Amino acid sequence: MRVVELPEILAAIDADEITAAIEEGFRRYSSGQAEAMAVGHLSFDDPPGDCHAKGAWLRGDDVFVCKLTTGFYRNDLVGLPTSNGFSAVASAKTGEILAILHDLGQLTDLRTALAGAIAARLIARADTRVLGVVGSGTQAALQAKWIAKALGIETVLVWARDPAKAAAIGEAVPLAELAARADLIVTTTPSREALITAEMARPGMRIVAVGCDTPGKSEIAPEVMAQARIVVDSRSQCIDHGDTANAVAAGLIDGNGLIELGELIAAPIAFAAEEIVVADLTGVAVQDVQIAKAVWAKLAA
Amino acid sequence: MRVVELPEILAAIDADEITAAIEEGFRRYSSGQAEAMAVGHLSFDDPPGDCHAKGAWLRGDDVFVCKLTTGFYRNDLVGLPTSNGFSAVASAKTGEILAILHDLGQLTDLRTALAGAIAARLIARADTRVLGVVGSGTQAALQAKWIAKALGIETVLVWARDPAKAAAIGEAVPLAELAARADLIVTTTPSREALITAEMARPGMRIVAVGCDTPGKSEIAPEVMAQARIVVDSRSQCIDHGDTANAVAAGLIDGNGLIELGELIAAPIAFAAEEIVVADLTGVAVQDVQIAKAVWAKLAA
Repeated sequence: MRVVELPEILAAIDADEITAAIEEGFRRYSSGQAEAMAVGHLSFDDPPGDCHAKGAWLRGDDVFVCKLTTGFYRNDLVGLPTSNGFSAVASAKTGEILAILHDLGQLTDLRTALAGAIAARLIARADTRVLGVVGSGTQAALQAKWIAKALGIETVLVWARDPAKAAAIGEAVPLAELAARADLIVTTTPSREALITAEMARPGMRIVAVGCDTPGKSEIAPEVMAQARIVVDSRSQCIDHGDTANAVAAGLIDGNGLIELGELIAAPIAFAAEEIVVADLTGVAVQDVQIAKAVWAKLAA
Repeated sequence: MRVVELPEILAAIDADEITAAIEEGFRRYSSGQAEAMAVGHLSFDDPPGDCHAKGAWLRGDDVFVCKLTTGFYRNDLVGLPTSNGFSAVASAKTGEILAILHDLGQLTDLRTALAGAIAARLIARADTRVLGVVGSGTQAALQAKWIAKALGIETVLVWARDPAKAAAIGEAVPLAELAARADLIVTTTPSREALITAEMARPGMRIVAVGCDTPGKSEIAPEVMAQARIVVDSRSQCIDHGDTANAVAAGLIDGNGLIELGELIAAPIAFAAEEIVVADLTGVAVQDVQIAKAVWAKLAA
């Protein structure tokens, strides 16, 4: 069992290779090749924090991956990173634990951002020049970086409750201005009330929604979802929670017609310029499997 | 993050301390102090194998534990241990991963055996001299060792399909003879059909059942369960699967009257000599938490 600390993990990251691996993971997930564990979750109260365990195996692979991530948002106050965790890479032939990648949750952050960039590339209009980022946390910065890179974005507008934090990522603007000017929007907040409202909807709007990943959260108003072609990372998971689920619960969409991201990757769709398209990404374990496999392949080479 | 390999883990094991810790874990579980993750599971087909992820936090504790165990039964053929895995000990205050105990599944084996010994001590008749072990695998040997130690057992009878394997643990006997002679029986097999049948039931029979831990398995006939006082490690889990669940499914018991092991530890019951008592142990994450915490406390001291 090899233990790999963060600096060595970061040195083994090749974003293009990982992007290709994650795309392959989504394709294989949507073609039914993934076996996933029930997601494990623990909540802590004093100080508040949580822990998630996810694991999966892509049938035919020699290895499988289980990861544990923790988030303790008050760690800032004591000078510790808010995220932590590791990914375990194990043999699907013998059960041996091959590696512990002690990534402090950074592989999760990166796989989430790269999935956003993958979805952005597939749903963006050809003339996309302006990216609108909603939120100012770790994912806001990472999505801005990787979507801008994937699409050759020139202008990044950012809305966040704290304009100073927004300005650290791009041009801080009011939310309504962002919604009016951005060719593509990425939402990255833990909001419990919709931020992208029905009044903001306009033809050709494209949204990558990554913040709304647990029950009770909401970033996109159900009325906007009802007007959109909807791409989901996981049909079953997005019907259970996330912006898609909220629109289903509101009775505004019925869950038919959802396009799974792996299907879109396998067979890209030329969306009409005036269509509203939302990619609702709640996060699936195949992303964790593919990024850990890609890093481990470099390290074990 | 400290990584601890098996020899150092084994050197840190104090069975008496771990037994006390596991008893405390059962008590706290039964008094509602445990938060447990959904159990994660993956199955592999070629070669056959499986993986389980369990995690829990006892409210108020400074640490929580998640473990991953694998079982690949054909590893024997290639000279590898059939079990593998690790326990991660993490801070419930900051989410930091404090330790990876790379125990190859041996802490799971030991906590299962010590739970058997705890249950045996609480349900055995005072005059118990003869232990009957059903099965010849890792748990058969470990339960024989730890129950014999806990109860001062003089004679160990063993039944297994392969008498040579049985003889490695104790006196190999036919199953009917074992059932007739043993004061206390421990069942440790992955059988899918009941081994302890209605014909074998007799007044004062005491059984610790640890083998039947997943849906589809069965060691004790529902008719025997129906005559017994039943102790369970987890009321909710034992109603879902295991010998208790099989008897509920057969309509012979209704699930009321089950005694949870943590309740029995907190308030021991003087069972009448002629009562049949079965302790149905399906395995709960608090055992993993408590053994990992006890080992880590020694190592971090």
